[in-house]
Amino acid sequence: MPQSSPPRFDTISFLTDYGTSDEFVGVVKSVIRQIAPHAAVIDITHDIAPYDTKAASLTLARSVQYLCPGVVLAVVDPGVGTQRRAVAIEVGDGQSYLVGPDNGMLASAVGMVGGATAAVELTNPEYQLAAPGPTFAGRDIFGPAAAHLCAGVPLEALGDPVDTSSLLPGIIPLPREEGGALVAEVLWVDRYGNCQLNVDPDEVVVWGDRIQLKWVRPREQARTATRVRTFDDLGPGQVGLVTDSYGLLAVAVHRGSAAETLGLAAGDEIHLIRLDDGADDRATGPSVPVALGTRTQRPS
Amino acid sequence: MPQSSPPRFDTISFLTDYGTSDEFVGVVKSVIRQIAPHAAVIDITHDIAPYDTKAASLTLARSVQYLCPGVVLAVVDPGVGTQRRAVAIEVGDGQSYLVGPDNGMLASAVGMVGGATAAVELTNPEYQLAAPGPTFAGRDIFGPAAAHLCAGVPLEALGDPVDTSSLLPGIIPLPREEGGALVAEVLWVDRYGNCQLNVDPDEVVVWGDRIQLKWVRPREQARTATRVRTFDDLGPGQVGLVTDSYGLLAVAVHRGSAAETLGLAAGDEIHLIRLDDGADDRATGPSVPVALGTRTQRPS
Amino acid sequence: MPQSSPPRFDTISFLTDYGTSDEFVGVVKSVIRQIAPHAAVIDITHDIAPYDTKAASLTLARSVQYLCPGVVLAVVDPGVGTQRRAVAIEVGDGQSYLVGPDNGMLASAVGMVGGATAAVELTNPEYQLAAPGPTFAGRDIFGPAAAHLCAGVPLEALGDPVDTSSLLPGIIPLPREEGGALVAEVLWVDRYGNCQLNVDPDEVVVWGDRIQLKWVRPREQARTATRVRTFDDLGPGQVGLVTDSYGLLAVAVHRGSAAETLGLAAGDEIHLIRLDDGADDRATGPSVPVALGTRTQRPS
Repeated sequence: MPQSSPPRFDTISFLTDYGTSDEFVGVVKSVIRQIAPHAAVIDITHDIAPYDTKAASLTLARSVQYLCPGVVLAVVDPGVGTQRRAVAIEVGDGQSYLVGPDNGMLASAVGMVGGATAAVELTNPEYQLAAPGPTFAGRDIFGPAAAHLCAGVPLEALGDPVDTSSLLPGIIPLPREEGGALVAEVLWVDRYGNCQLNVDPDEVVVWGDRIQLKWVRPREQARTATRVRTFDDLGPGQVGLVTDSYGLLAVAVHRGSAAETLGLAAGDEIHLIRLDDGADDRATGPSVPVALGTRTQRPS
Repeated sequence: MPQSSPPRFDTISFLTDYGTSDEFVGVVKSVIRQIAPHAAVIDITHDIAPYDTKAASLTLARSVQYLCPGVVLAVVDPGVGTQRRAVAIEVGDGQSYLVGPDNGMLASAVGMVGGATAAVELTNPEYQLAAPGPTFAGRDIFGPAAAHLCAGVPLEALGDPVDTSSLLPGIIPLPREEGGALVAEVLWVDRYGNCQLNVDPDEVVVWGDRIQLKWVRPREQARTATRVRTFDDLGPGQVGLVTDSYGLLAVAVHRGSAAETLGLAAGDEIHLIRLDDGADDRATGPSVPVALGTRTQRPS
Repeated sequence: MPQSSPPRFDTISFLTDYGTSDEFVGVVKSVIRQIAPHAAVIDITHDIAPYDTKAASLTLARSVQYLCPGVVLAVVDPGVGTQRRAVAIEVGDGQSYLVGPDNGMLASAVGMVGGATAAVELTNPEYQLAAPGPTFAGRDIFGPAAAHLCAGVPLEALGDPVDTSSLLPGIIPLPREEGGALVAEVLWVDRYGNCQLNVDPDEVVVWGDRIQLKWVRPREQARTATRVRTFDDLGPGQVGLVTDSYGLLAVAVHRGSAAETLGLAAGDEIHLIRLDDGADDRATGPSVPVALGTRTQRPS
């Protein structure tokens, strides 16, 4: 093993579909602590539904601007033990690293922070645990890689270089126009039942205060939604459209679960239909790449 | 922004209704770590039922004597984004701080540790994150305030002073006498199904070993309960009244869930009826205010 | 109280059946932090089913080789407040300690790391919190003991010596031969529905690639399972036998829950029946005792 360098990062942000009923998360943290005792591990969540790489990808994309610079360790890995690559991806020329399977889950977060500046496949067994079986890559491969990066091991020591253009792309769906309607998708139902859409509020800013919603599952329904600033501006029984805390449009009801009330679930298609006349849609500006910790900088 | 002072506290005790399936808790911790990297965050719980400020209040009241001196960050906030105030409350002349919405949730805990000695409304944007939407106050307002207090920022820098007598009071219900019975309420059903009552064991200490319980939901029922010292003193099928680990009376059954067996839930009313004759009730002494960490002092 | 020694351990690995909906875990961590502020607490899990000492025992046995040297704090305690002893057990002549009730739950883990080299009953009230009731031993007895061990308090100060041979033994079931079949037990159903058996893959290594499985609950069923290297080697609808990440045989199905598909649960009996002819079974070598942190040592 190469000589070790001084510690480089002190935080690992950790996301999995491991749940917390088994010992998986605790075992990975124990392995990390023995390699990088100075590093703190912050749990993003471990309750991603088993194998749901899309939900994991969206969760990372929502979180990434708020995470501590350092290492993001993300393991939702339906293809564990197969030919999918285990990778570590550098962003911001070494500002941070993302470690996980190369199955598209990391792509959106990587894109949001400016794209990959380097990557390796985690092939060097010197930085892995010897495993009794091939199936717990978080413990044996990914966790140790994240810890070694924190401890100062250079990226290139962890394995063979990977062409960053060969990394699997992500799969965040875009809304489309169809017959005058904006066809959106429910990206995420949060703990409170609010339904985040893949719609930038700027896209409907000139539509006025009332927008019709139509969807077909579990049965065809239509409701008129009111644009409001906060959840509490809704009256009982009202359906609202709120700019949520991530800057996307979300369907909400008054102090209740919109998902339950309206029968919506993540992945459902929903049509937004303009009810009033008005000026042309305001153009949406281009997305600006950011970096880990960007949102936590104080405005200067 | 004022010059920063030396770090003041190293622990934040954190309670919310965020759940752990979304990234909310992890994002708040990431924000805290970037402001106060020296501070440890201890999760009290994040599984308060959505918007249940009463359950949050009771959980804080049970916990507060055992928490580390420092900052308590508690966010159950049905009125987020409305006119309810965001506050930081000083207790013990600066021994500790409680940060959260001014909706009554903090009041019982504040009262238990001697009452507020000062408070501010969190109005200073220099100590907040700029938010894309108005709805995630834990990330943008409360978390940063807790972290800045740990980092040494003085309370008065966080916003405008608040008259402590204007803080919303709490809502812990008191038992009452009615027709010879003590009418109590189930405050809390714990993980094991034990039903904590709002009854100090001293109130029934002279009632003898057998006390009748009556309740009407979901249907009228009566059971004779036996006063026992520990859960394991109960025989199979027996209903017991135990002084629980917080010093209150709790209804329990043998190695099972009293809530399930008896059909009880938090908020239910339950009548305690004396079965034997005896001396007059012993007077209950006045409550003595305590401070965070009080219960963890070793007896001298 | 004896003079305190320099800190000795900086990690407590923590397992309970407390769940995370109540404040129990947070309160114990708060108590620990006030006694041993330098110590980090790693949660193994707190979602052991209430009172399920067998599941706790198996979880500890799976985890122990990966845990940080230091203190393991494990509390699943149906007999709290009764005559069962509260103990601290030394392993590896002081390499690590396990703290919890003496009810058999710790025995397998202790055995795996070489057996107890000393033990005490936690009888010294100087290292305990004064409790308002007798029922929260994690907060009042076990947590403080774990923290004091980290802080450098010697084992013998915590209470009266216990003959290590008097500690309650564990209850991990062994497979047996019966009418040519290997009668196994489902030890554990993990988050993904994989069913770990109490079978070392070496015991069936010469049985060939196809093995018949028979079980009777909830109804009599038989399936032919295929030995595969990874979960993803299974085709849709196929039942597999995988060497899992702990080195034991597990029943799996393709990207789904074997437990749900096959109706299996922890504790169920399952018969493995040889389908082909072959050489004699390869002998299984003796188990070799290990130590905490063993599996995280790099191969030299």
